[in-house]
Amino acid sequence: MEGEPTLRLRIFDLNCWAIRYLSKRRQERVRLIGDTLRQEGFDLVLLQEVWSEQDYSDLKVKLAGCYPFSHYFRSGVIGSGLCVFSRFPILDTLLYQYSLNGYPYMLQHGDWFCGKSVGLVIIKISGITFNVYVTHLHAEYCREKDTYLPHRLVQAWELAQFIRHTSKAADVVLLGGDLNMHPEDVGIRLLRGWTGLRDAFAEATHFEGCKNGCTLVPDNCFTDNSELLPFPLGIRIDYILYKAISSFTVKCEELKTTTGPAPGMDIPFSDHEAVMATLHIQRQGQPVGATLGTADLALADVVTEARTEVGVGLRAAQRQRYSSGRMAVLALLLLLLQAAAALGTLAGLGTEQPFPKLSFCLLAFLALGVLVLAAALHVFHTMEVKVLHGTEDQMWMALRALQERP
Amino acid sequence: MEGEPTLRLRIFDLNCWAIRYLSKRRQERVRLIGDTLRQEGFDLVLLQEVWSEQDYSDLKVKLAGCYPFSHYFRSGVIGSGLCVFSRFPILDTLLYQYSLNGYPYMLQHGDWFCGKSVGLVIIKISGITFNVYVTHLHAEYCREKDTYLPHRLVQAWELAQFIRHTSKAADVVLLGGDLNMHPEDVGIRLLRGWTGLRDAFAEATHFEGCKNGCTLVPDNCFTDNSELLPFPLGIRIDYILYKAISSFTVKCEELKTTTGPAPGMDIPFSDHEAVMATLHIQRQGQPVGATLGTADLALADVVTEARTEVGVGLRAAQRQRYSSGRMAVLALLLLLLQAAAALGTLAGLGTEQPFPKLSFCLLAFLALGVLVLAAALHVFHTMEVKVLHGTEDQMWMALRALQERP
Repeated sequence: MEGEPTLRLRIFDLNCWAIRYLSKRRQERVRLIGDTLRQEGFDLVLLQEVWSEQDYSDLKVKLAGCYPFSHYFRSGVIGSGLCVFSRFPILDTLLYQYSLNGYPYMLQHGDWFCGKSVGLVIIKISGITFNVYVTHLHAEYCREKDTYLPHRLVQAWELAQFIRHTSKAADVVLLGGDLNMHPEDVGIRLLRGWTGLRDAFAEATHFEGCKNGCTLVPDNCFTDNSELLPFPLGIRIDYILYKAISSFTVKCEELKTTTGPAPGMDIPFSDHEAVMATLHIQRQGQPVGATLGTADLALADVVTEARTEVGVGLRAAQRQRYSSGRMAVLALLLLLLQAAAALGTLAGLGTEQPFPKLSFCLLAFLALGVLVLAAALHVFHTMEVKVLHGTEDQMWMALRALQERP
Repeated sequence: MEGEPTLRLRIFDLNCWAIRYLSKRRQERVRLIGDTLRQEGFDLVLLQEVWSEQDYSDLKVKLAGCYPFSHYFRSGVIGSGLCVFSRFPILDTLLYQYSLNGYPYMLQHGDWFCGKSVGLVIIKISGITFNVYVTHLHAEYCREKDTYLPHRLVQAWELAQFIRHTSKAADVVLLGGDLNMHPEDVGIRLLRGWTGLRDAFAEATHFEGCKNGCTLVPDNCFTDNSELLPFPLGIRIDYILYKAISSFTVKCEELKTTTGPAPGMDIPFSDHEAVMATLHIQRQGQPVGATLGTADLALADVVTEARTEVGVGLRAAQRQRYSSGRMAVLALLLLLLQAAAALGTLAGLGTEQPFPKLSFCLLAFLALGVLVLAAALHVFHTMEVKVLHGTEDQMWMALRALQERP
């Protein structure tokens, strides 16, 4: 590759669905992923949902020959699930954990416990500096009434801001991951508009794989088809995005997705399809502006739309903060009332009636439990309000900057 | 200033100690700070512990004439307390909340609730891009047995990494804030070594203020002198640090601190002294390397020392995770045992003795309470372990990079 005028880079991206005890045939699939990666010899592998460090270690051992460099990003309770394998030395890494990521009490969804993040690895190939980002945003559980939309929008905004601020010395920016957004969703338009990143699927000269580049498809035996009813062809939520910053051009020569079962096997790699891109990177005479695409007038509309959704989330969070606070105050009042009653009894008032010890204790414990839980909720929603408010402010600042541009 | 070969920049940094209901004579002091800032006309004001948004809004109104640009960073439950006032337009901002910041159950310390962070504002003056960082690290409550040292080291490391990754397109980097570290502490050596930042106090041509540049001094009427017993002159924990990245040089012409009471007043601005620096920024022919100072051989020793302390914290966190997990399991077992006893009674076993309803209920609630608390602690310490482990990994990577350098 060295010395050639064009650099050809093959990238593999997959949400591995490797949750210990929960994901079906996990170990078999992780082995299969490892075998395929070893055979195919990509340059860069971006994985999500590798939630067991043991799976990462196994992959690392298996891939040591062809991908001697790797990094696993740790965060949250379960872990970010993000890791990168590379043929080229990883020079530096950085992890940014999103400020909002669902609710700890939504145990059935569990996103909060993963500490969803964006990981950055810096790689230099033939003198070209690549900032490679891998991420996984909050899942969408119900598209009709998507209560997590403000959180996902905050994540998309923070992702865009993180990329903009950390990629200023890079020649090429690559982003791979499960964004949990359809291609036309406001979050992805915001991300693409604010960073100038281009979608490998839309730009590819040659495409091969599931129709419309879908990565959650009914042909995948692990997919819950009832979830895909409104989208009979499937949905596209896994992406490879890229842009050149300095005097380089990047072109997507080919984009592929897997189509259900892995080649020659009876099972797929995961419940998501893998995305594989072949990029051509070439040095060109004229430096390309860093703000490519961001000057777009339509961008102001996208930021306004996203800001409106964040505002909706802010008001919901404020309501929840208020009601949890009110609940805590009521529980505290009840406890105080009980304390007064107990003191009254001790002082000898109302001795003509037997004191109902059992119901008294039950009520006191109930009030105490409600107080602790409501106070914790109040604290959590206060943090949520702070982040949503801060994001609204930042978006407003961005809008002002867009409007002031000549 | 425009067109001159040398740019002169006056910076004001202060931990304002403006905690609603807790800080003494808060409103009076905030007014005093505002008046002084208006009179003195600095170029850049970096404030910490402005924990009430109302105080920020009041300052903003008062300072609108001389500092038309400002930003308040929101995070955590109470807020980050960080804000910036500037004579020059703020082009962009970014907030990074530290992954570790004390414990939520240490209510008497309260750092966890502040969501300690580093805020970045980008400013352009006479064509020179300034990346200005403001931060406040976790407090040190007991120097002899500093249980928060690993957390503060993780913060110092994340601060250094954040500055390195986000300042690559900057010409000049400025950092101001309360770092809660003495000048010779490992955290500040790590921060300075890994970023190449220089200490305005050490570099100043002319200094005026408290001896040794101390910012917590016995002469300040709000200082708890018993805390300063081992340091009769006071301690220096508030800093202005800087470096030039591209073809610029920065020199600190003058550094000043306040010395207790504000000029002409009977009270100081805060329990901390303010730090005021006058910097000279000049363009020079030869670009200065971005890694200035980081190639230092001694840096590897500093990273090793910091990594050892992080390792100590990691093992403590692992022990706490284990004991909280064990406590949760024991509480669960007790609950199961009680459920079995209750079922036994319902099935008619042991009817010859009266069932002790009250003690049974008390015990059940106690076990439930312990279960919930221990499980929450287990979750919290698991996250702590993940972050400390991740930081150890990153430091190891940094050490390898330092050793591989020619």
